[in-house]
Amino acid sequence: MSQFGAIDKLAVSTIRLLAVDEVAKANSGHPGAPLGMAPAAHVVWSQMNMNPKNPDWINRDRFVLSNGHAVALLYAMLHLTGYDFSIDDLKQFRQLGSKTPGHPEFELPGVEVTTGPLGQGITNAVGMAIAQRNLAATYNKPNFTLSDNFTYVFLGDGCLQEGISSEASSLAGHLKLGNLICIYDDNNITIDGNTEVSFDEDVAKRYEAYGWEVLYVENGNEDLEGIAKAVAQAKKSTDKPTLIKMTTIIGYGSQQQGSHAVHGSPLKPEDIKQLRIKFGFNPDKSFVVPQEVYDFYQTKILNPGVEANKKWNSLFEQYQQKYPELGAELARRLAGKLPANWEKALPVYTPKDSAVATRKLSEIVLQSIHEELPELIGGSADLTPSNLTRWSGAVDFQPPSSKLGDYSGRYIRYGIREHAMGAIMNGISAYGAHYLPYGGTFLNFVSYAAGAVRLSALSGHPIIYVATHDSIGVGEDGPTHQPIETLAHFRALPNTHVWRPADGNETSAAYKVAIESKHTPSIIALTRQNLPHLEGSSIEKAAKGGYVLQDVANPHIILAATGSEVSTSVEAAKLLASQGINARIVSLPDFLAFDRQSEEYRLSVLPDGIPVLSVEVLSTSCWGKYAHQSFGLDRFGASGKAPEVFKSFGFTPEGVAERAAKTVAFYKGQKVISPLRKAF
Amino acid sequence: MSQFGAIDKLAVSTIRLLAVDEVAKANSGHPGAPLGMAPAAHVVWSQMNMNPKNPDWINRDRFVLSNGHAVALLYAMLHLTGYDFSIDDLKQFRQLGSKTPGHPEFELPGVEVTTGPLGQGITNAVGMAIAQRNLAATYNKPNFTLSDNFTYVFLGDGCLQEGISSEASSLAGHLKLGNLICIYDDNNITIDGNTEVSFDEDVAKRYEAYGWEVLYVENGNEDLEGIAKAVAQAKKSTDKPTLIKMTTIIGYGSQQQGSHAVHGSPLKPEDIKQLRIKFGFNPDKSFVVPQEVYDFYQTKILNPGVEANKKWNSLFEQYQQKYPELGAELARRLAGKLPANWEKALPVYTPKDSAVATRKLSEIVLQSIHEELPELIGGSADLTPSNLTRWSGAVDFQPPSSKLGDYSGRYIRYGIREHAMGAIMNGISAYGAHYLPYGGTFLNFVSYAAGAVRLSALSGHPIIYVATHDSIGVGEDGPTHQPIETLAHFRALPNTHVWRPADGNETSAAYKVAIESKHTPSIIALTRQNLPHLEGSSIEKAAKGGYVLQDVANPHIILAATGSEVSTSVEAAKLLASQGINARIVSLPDFLAFDRQSEEYRLSVLPDGIPVLSVEVLSTSCWGKYAHQSFGLDRFGASGKAPEVFKSFGFTPEGVAERAAKTVAFYKGQKVISPLRKAF
Repeated sequence: MSQFGAIDKLAVSTIRLLAVDEVAKANSGHPGAPLGMAPAAHVVWSQMNMNPKNPDWINRDRFVLSNGHAVALLYAMLHLTGYDFSIDDLKQFRQLGSKTPGHPEFELPGVEVTTGPLGQGITNAVGMAIAQRNLAATYNKPNFTLSDNFTYVFLGDGCLQEGISSEASSLAGHLKLGNLICIYDDNNITIDGNTEVSFDEDVAKRYEAYGWEVLYVENGNEDLEGIAKAVAQAKKSTDKPTLIKMTTIIGYGSQQQGSHAVHGSPLKPEDIKQLRIKFGFNPDKSFVVPQEVYDFYQTKILNPGVEANKKWNSLFEQYQQKYPELGAELARRLAGKLPANWEKALPVYTPKDSAVATRKLSEIVLQSIHEELPELIGGSADLTPSNLTRWSGAVDFQPPSSKLGDYSGRYIRYGIREHAMGAIMNGISAYGAHYLPYGGTFLNFVSYAAGAVRLSALSGHPIIYVATHDSIGVGEDGPTHQPIETLAHFRALPNTHVWRPADGNETSAAYKVAIESKHTPSIIALTRQNLPHLEGSSIEKAAKGGYVLQDVANPHIILAATGSEVSTSVEAAKLLASQGINARIVSLPDFLAFDRQSEEYRLSVLPDGIPVLSVEVLSTSCWGKYAHQSFGLDRFGASGKAPEVFKSFGFTPEGVAERAAKTVAFYKGQKVISPLRKAF
Repeated sequence: MSQFGAIDKLAVSTIRLLAVDEVAKANSGHPGAPLGMAPAAHVVWSQMNMNPKNPDWINRDRFVLSNGHAVALLYAMLHLTGYDFSIDDLKQFRQLGSKTPGHPEFELPGVEVTTGPLGQGITNAVGMAIAQRNLAATYNKPNFTLSDNFTYVFLGDGCLQEGISSEASSLAGHLKLGNLICIYDDNNITIDGNTEVSFDEDVAKRYEAYGWEVLYVENGNEDLEGIAKAVAQAKKSTDKPTLIKMTTIIGYGSQQQGSHAVHGSPLKPEDIKQLRIKFGFNPDKSFVVPQEVYDFYQTKILNPGVEANKKWNSLFEQYQQKYPELGAELARRLAGKLPANWEKALPVYTPKDSAVATRKLSEIVLQSIHEELPELIGGSADLTPSNLTRWSGAVDFQPPSSKLGDYSGRYIRYGIREHAMGAIMNGISAYGAHYLPYGGTFLNFVSYAAGAVRLSALSGHPIIYVATHDSIGVGEDGPTHQPIETLAHFRALPNTHVWRPADGNETSAAYKVAIESKHTPSIIALTRQNLPHLEGSSIEKAAKGGYVLQDVANPHIILAATGSEVSTSVEAAKLLASQGINARIVSLPDFLAFDRQSEEYRLSVLPDGIPVLSVEVLSTSCWGKYAHQSFGLDRFGASGKAPEVFKSFGFTPEGVAERAAKTVAFYKGQKVISPLRKAF
């Protein structure tokens, strides 16, 4: 006998019509995928372990809508299962200021990650599955299964075509993430029409090649039993992630079903009417939810979820008694708090310490803090010995059967997959338990991950990019590896720290702010080459994002520099002094942190009356907000020994001094207003 | 009997030692992959059809080193086969100003594309294979096979892990590009160590899933015969691209062979000595090429290549007589020239014409010029009906067997693969024959292709991104789809046009400059929403990148705007006039084109004495070079109806006028210097 009956059918019809009504009311949105995937949503959600009254419960099953344009479906599910979404919220779909924006947004209750940009969601989900495996391996004890949740993903052809999902899926197979269950809406339609125009590969075979289990549901439009069986089978596959290839008809039930016309446009009123009649609903009423459907979900999902959360709480109480240290640690993490005084572990330097590359200083930070912070979980996109991202003695996060590490390991070998690394870090962060992911690559290749970085910033995931080889200082590898536009790019991205520390204290400061950030990602740009420790730097000052490193009486000019150009500017100032030019040195390691200081403080650093020359060996285009004149590199670099390359572009004390002197001459006799002054 | 003998073995040893010597001399570089792949290089090059004395011959076989860090191998091959690379050039490997930089660069003779950033080369090669198929389908005639070249690719694990290669390979399988032959250096080593740490998928099975032919060479270190057989087999596979999985030992012959230690560091002197002895060379001599090796390559490659090129030239002469129209067209394209007066086809507008979205105006341009420009080859990453990139009556570029188009088609269905689209366009452009690729996506998702855009700019491929939905004007789709940082990002990238046209004439101007560009890519940002045609715009003026759109006597302020904000600023100026404030309207559709104008011209647009307020509904961070104050959006957008979203952020005539008035008040009585004035 089927486990599904009339009430399930009614529930599916209700979901379908709610989604259609949301889109129709907004006169904007995507009805096609919700119509096709409503049965899967019903089946998957009906057996998920979650508490709609406490969306943050750490052991909830996660649901990720990777095809985020189908969000009307998600809002319908959240409403029906008791999350804080009213029918009125659904009626405000896609309206300014509403709780139901056009794509899922992380901060909404029950929305696990922001999706819409294709391929991100499935990749976030890989991160969540990693986090679960790590949490379980770290804290589960006999009779104390604190963590055993699954992560479910809905995704479509678009997600599968994006390269990021290939990267993530290959890694998920390698990592044997059996807690990951993906349902592929195989509807054969994308915006350009039938997928046959560009996508006729054998997806199932590809996923088998990645080491996944692949299951099939031939009639995803109606076969609830078949979907349930596949999900049950997937849950049994403990050492392989599962792809359920579910064939559906896009816009199922609509007069335009099966065509791309139903993908991204509201259904016509007559079409909606016939749909309601077909499903046994009143053709003239919108946003209808039969009481028995509410009751069903309350019985099936809400009540058991509340109960499961309660049981878990009680289990965790006992755990804390039996394992006081681990218990306290996990309790702290669940409260989203850092350990007291963790920052005392950050290394501090004086100018007497010998010159070191900031990538090496970053390694020392990680070495110093990893024991304090069990939530720190690092990795690199295959550049470990160059990024210096692995503390000595680190255990790799690997399936135990590989003998290369285990799931309690906190170092992830991402492979040469920068984009996936970024989105996986987002997923790990979104998982909760105060996970603090960092990942290494060359600064220039953070650009490969731009799509994921943007979502870190938009969603407020406080992850960290350890971005080494930050300029033409990479030398011989040449212009393909030398960032020029990269800092300008990410500084223009809202809510993003873009650090370029000049020495040891500034490197520690970058990590301090990054780790204390609740809702802001950080990119820390680090040198390949050695830099001296500077007189005047401190963690406290650098944490402000910008400060006066070295001052003089009556400065004629301010040299505002970052990273490797700060020490060059310090040397330039000495040359200038011999010419009677007084130069204040301002270090500006992070624009965002500086912008968040008081206006009074900022004006004390960059006051009226003194021309500011920025010195940074990358694009000058972002410096207008702080500098009157800029010395940078608005062209591609060159292959050669690093000191020679620097010299050829004038980035020497002499080169900086020459430009500073010209700047002083240019502004002589002029009234100079601080670039910080705003008219509005 | 083997076709290979002692001379082949000697040649392979010579290649190996040359590569090792280059790296040793530079004390920087990657010896591992060249040692492993030298036999494949020898075998592949020995049967390639190319003329080292004329590296631009259109029907040459292409060789792409996707694992660009193995460039020492490429320079060795280019030297040995008679390209313009001397032994002294090899000795200058990785030195500043040399002809042998640290990664292959497009402008060097015999280097088909710039590689190094992983995954780009194989994707460029897909573009080259597309171009070849299109050229052949367009110009070949019975007995006139003008185009039949192959594209060969060397690639390693890194290229295969990058998502971009997955995108490109899936598409190449779909397109049945039998002219593409890829040799995968399966050496099991990446920088992080053995590939088992992150990459144990079944690559061969994955490529079969894409529809590729997969062949194996088990001993790539020595089995020249096996490599040759696989290549011959691959050439027979006319309707499938081929992946030859060739197992090698990285650093073959070195004392450290098989470890990642040989990947990216020079071999030690003793190691090099034992290697020379092993290969029968004098242990103390570097950069040795036996004369018989030169002779061999001259006989095997250079002479036949020169001859083949001659024959082709004569065939093409006959072709031009028999097919004068097509022949003249191809001759023009091979000369890199546009048709005379092509730009007359560009549409021109007056303010009386009705308001139209610039994405629609872009469609009209494409409709108007596609017949004039047979080299135009377009497409979209699955957003055709949104990007409006397909002229009516276009034929899709598809394998004829698909019945969806044919290889003479000039519209490519890229699928949801932005990064691959970018790099494929680079490959099509690099192929030659004056191909002008353009590709559509939303402006926000050009960021997914950032890695490829950077190489367009660095290599100087004049490709075009048709980047629609250019702001919060996308409305309901919300912040995941609303670009903020995107223009600042690409404006900071050297050698990149970033157009944001305000109306019909400016859209035509953007295409005019983009198409006339020889070495500069263009991103054309276009609106979803309608914009009026402006009084004062013209193709000629807009082509300068910035110009005075509307002027007044004694302006108190300049409103410098782009795209949709130009017409808002025009309306704001009317409100300001009623307050007695005179505003000049400057339209700045492309910073790069403007920067390339004379200083005199630029100062005539943005002179001293008048404060400039920029108005653009995206990040303000890049405006310092032109504006004293900026009105923009330095936060993420919002989901809602577009007019409401604009209004909520103050982007209305009233909002602009208010900020303009404050700017005028702020600078009242101040001496204002043009932001264009530079101190050095």
